[in-house]
Amino acid sequence: MNDRITNSVLASRTMDADAAAALLHHGMTIGMSGFTGSGYPKAVPLALAARIEAEHARGNPFRVRVWTGASTGPELDGALAKADGIEFRLPYNSDPIAREKINRGEMDYFDMHLSQVAPMAWQGFLGPLDVALIEVSGIRADGALIPSSSVGNNKTWLDRADKVILEVNRWQNPALEGMHDIYYGTALPPNRVPIPLVRPDDRIGDAYFRCDPDKVIAIVETEAPDRNLPFAAPGDAAFAIAGHLLDFFAHEVARGRLPANLLPLQSGVGNIANAVLSGLVDSRFENMTAYTEVIQDGMLDLLDSGKLRMASATAFSLSPEAAATLNANMHRYHDRMILRPQEISNHPELIRRLGCIAMNGLIEADIYGNVNSTHVMGSRIQNGIGGSGDFARNAYVSIFMTPSTAKDGDISAIVPMASHVDHITQDVQVIVTEQGLADLRGLSPKQRAALIIEKCAHPNYRPALQDYYRRARLHSYGQQSPTLLGEALSWHQRFVETGSMLA
Amino acid sequence: MNDRITNSVLASRTMDADAAAALLHHGMTIGMSGFTGSGYPKAVPLALAARIEAEHARGNPFRVRVWTGASTGPELDGALAKADGIEFRLPYNSDPIAREKINRGEMDYFDMHLSQVAPMAWQGFLGPLDVALIEVSGIRADGALIPSSSVGNNKTWLDRADKVILEVNRWQNPALEGMHDIYYGTALPPNRVPIPLVRPDDRIGDAYFRCDPDKVIAIVETEAPDRNLPFAAPGDAAFAIAGHLLDFFAHEVARGRLPANLLPLQSGVGNIANAVLSGLVDSRFENMTAYTEVIQDGMLDLLDSGKLRMASATAFSLSPEAAATLNANMHRYHDRMILRPQEISNHPELIRRLGCIAMNGLIEADIYGNVNSTHVMGSRIQNGIGGSGDFARNAYVSIFMTPSTAKDGDISAIVPMASHVDHITQDVQVIVTEQGLADLRGLSPKQRAALIIEKCAHPNYRPALQDYYRRARLHSYGQQSPTLLGEALSWHQRFVETGSMLA
Repeated sequence: MNDRITNSVLASRTMDADAAAALLHHGMTIGMSGFTGSGYPKAVPLALAARIEAEHARGNPFRVRVWTGASTGPELDGALAKADGIEFRLPYNSDPIAREKINRGEMDYFDMHLSQVAPMAWQGFLGPLDVALIEVSGIRADGALIPSSSVGNNKTWLDRADKVILEVNRWQNPALEGMHDIYYGTALPPNRVPIPLVRPDDRIGDAYFRCDPDKVIAIVETEAPDRNLPFAAPGDAAFAIAGHLLDFFAHEVARGRLPANLLPLQSGVGNIANAVLSGLVDSRFENMTAYTEVIQDGMLDLLDSGKLRMASATAFSLSPEAAATLNANMHRYHDRMILRPQEISNHPELIRRLGCIAMNGLIEADIYGNVNSTHVMGSRIQNGIGGSGDFARNAYVSIFMTPSTAKDGDISAIVPMASHVDHITQDVQVIVTEQGLADLRGLSPKQRAALIIEKCAHPNYRPALQDYYRRARLHSYGQQSPTLLGEALSWHQRFVETGSMLA
Repeated sequence: MNDRITNSVLASRTMDADAAAALLHHGMTIGMSGFTGSGYPKAVPLALAARIEAEHARGNPFRVRVWTGASTGPELDGALAKADGIEFRLPYNSDPIAREKINRGEMDYFDMHLSQVAPMAWQGFLGPLDVALIEVSGIRADGALIPSSSVGNNKTWLDRADKVILEVNRWQNPALEGMHDIYYGTALPPNRVPIPLVRPDDRIGDAYFRCDPDKVIAIVETEAPDRNLPFAAPGDAAFAIAGHLLDFFAHEVARGRLPANLLPLQSGVGNIANAVLSGLVDSRFENMTAYTEVIQDGMLDLLDSGKLRMASATAFSLSPEAAATLNANMHRYHDRMILRPQEISNHPELIRRLGCIAMNGLIEADIYGNVNSTHVMGSRIQNGIGGSGDFARNAYVSIFMTPSTAKDGDISAIVPMASHVDHITQDVQVIVTEQGLADLRGLSPKQRAALIIEKCAHPNYRPALQDYYRRARLHSYGQQSPTLLGEALSWHQRFVETGSMLA
């Protein structure tokens, strides 16, 4: 008996990836596992892409609708997008090939609040789900599924789909077993009840996915690593941002507005987030917790340092090196990490109850603190809103971090008007750049504008922002949030035309 | 003994409004009661305004910071704004004099998510609170306070303020006693726990406010009615919108996506909301409930019809006629209405758990379904975001309703780009105008754009929107949410310059 598939009925349904992919057809909606490069199916999507290319070569249409947890890897989004095989995609993407298709208008993409995907699927708002294609790390004798390195929407896809295809990935460490907490208490209204989680380390569910064995039409064995992105080492700007933020935390603790061990941390990914987490390693804060979407490199370091007591997330998001280290030492982390469904890791009820400290990146913020996290120049999607809205709206304090410029200074992260809004001014309490930190709590729009320009804008853009704001104070139609309509988006237009926002 | 003030210690602190106002000073922050014209203090603010005017006449500075539940009445915001007495205002205003001061840049105004006011006050993010000035309908022998026609943030102001001034309003019906449910289970993290409310009719708190009697520095007796706004009868557009929405509800029930008695209704105020509620009176839906911010005229009619089983809110928002009727018949509604703190009526945890059907108005929506609820032409504040974000983000289904044009057709409610964003595209699932209903669930931005233009735009503006969108599909920097940066706000600019968005 296969040591990863110990249920004999299910073991009899193993087949190779091509045979499994042959069960998928044009027009299907497929709910796949995968969250930030972890735990996505690695063999069947590749086989499906080959099948799609073959059908296209024969002149036959073949496109599918793809739902996931969040981003995946090149073997999934990359391969299927390259094959022109994705008609519609939700709820998040960071694959460069898929991104290019989306931004050429060749693929429909609905980027969603990650907490809302499962409820809206249950509510029937997203349409029917034909197949769930889920990576697991093993199948128990009783048929329960051992999750792999991400949980995402897997529970919901397994429950909602008509048919199920499983990939059992031998690369995933067996020590993952027991690290997951799959909450089965969700329901449709009017039958929803309080979610009984009051600490980041509470376990409220099962360690396994339930799955009706009659729905399982194929099982494919794999042994392929998660393809996480290389780690970009933090630079001076990232460390400067981290420094401002750590000063802010110390100040808030001193003023009695934060406990000495802070509150559960939520942190996005990337080098700024890693710089902040590195800074916390060297800080005086102890006994911290994380209630967040993903566990990234810096979070592992913080766990190793002993400063972080435990971390709750829905997935790993690691560099290849950190993934290898984690996989080799999973037992050390077994009792200090919990992976949950994304509807729980990102649930507004829980984020507000726990009082998370939300730390997210941005593309641009305007002088009133409206934040664009998704659309470059208002129209070109970068990745998606992901869970940033779940956390920013419901956090104890919502912090956004960014270098003050991008593209070697040609783009200012602080603009007169955001060219797209993901986080409204009310959901943005602190903005930090390497220039400084603007504490916007309790301020009116005009008070916010003065502070953001002063504290956060790059000196190369600050005079132009001051000039814009001064003239808006004179000439705007209204003076609650002074705006020059004919000029508000001119910086973006200039960038599109000249390659720089600088006049 | 006064029948409204049966605690002898507190009764000894009664004084007239001028004497109470003399206890207020320049620079103070005052947390006042009041929510949508109900339950606001009516005598002391007028006396304070007179005192401020007198001090100004003497050349002395006198301005205060005013926090409330939401909007109030002319005796509060109107009088204090007219006296130039408000330096800073939160979280919501609809007073025309205050609005004018704000839009001239003479008063700082921070419009907040109404659910977040109390938590942020507790977190210390809004600064200290010097005085609470609260209308109640009576004081019990044990010192507990009987709330009046709104609850708002009163619990929090009473707890947080250094000193308390009470107005005991004899106009308020004694039958209000027992209709309130004041939840005292909130806390700061890490000590927050689940809020034990699972049905709109659950009672989870006390019927009274607790108040440290040592903090009470003055009690003023009044007998003045709430000044609610006259009722604007729904016109053809409102009834057409209501018709589209009722068809949608019926369709959703038929498809099994809504229970036969719907889900708890949240409804904004105004003649469209009243038309919808009137439509429900004549509908086949029965045994409905409301979990909402305010109980308006149409909600009373729906209760009278028997179709609405009960309504939970934080305040009344009635026409003078309906207020008089309610006040004369309060006993009839006593067991079918619950008034709660606004942090509970608007709590994301509860709105998502209950699965509210959110129905809110808007100023404009863009072709991607981003909604502007607050800023006319992007800069001039109308009222504020209020609770619309609390409900829209967390609702089972989030619906926005508006006539397709305003100002006799000179303004299109559907525009190329919203000039300010309060509700991002992900939080807007259905848009209804008198032209039709756009069901945007599960759609990508481009799919949304096509549908919004087709279903919702006025025929006078539809061709221009189609033309804009067609050209944006050709020339936009990116094609996720096609945008022509140089033209996106030109409709607003044209309105400011010519008085019409029509070219």
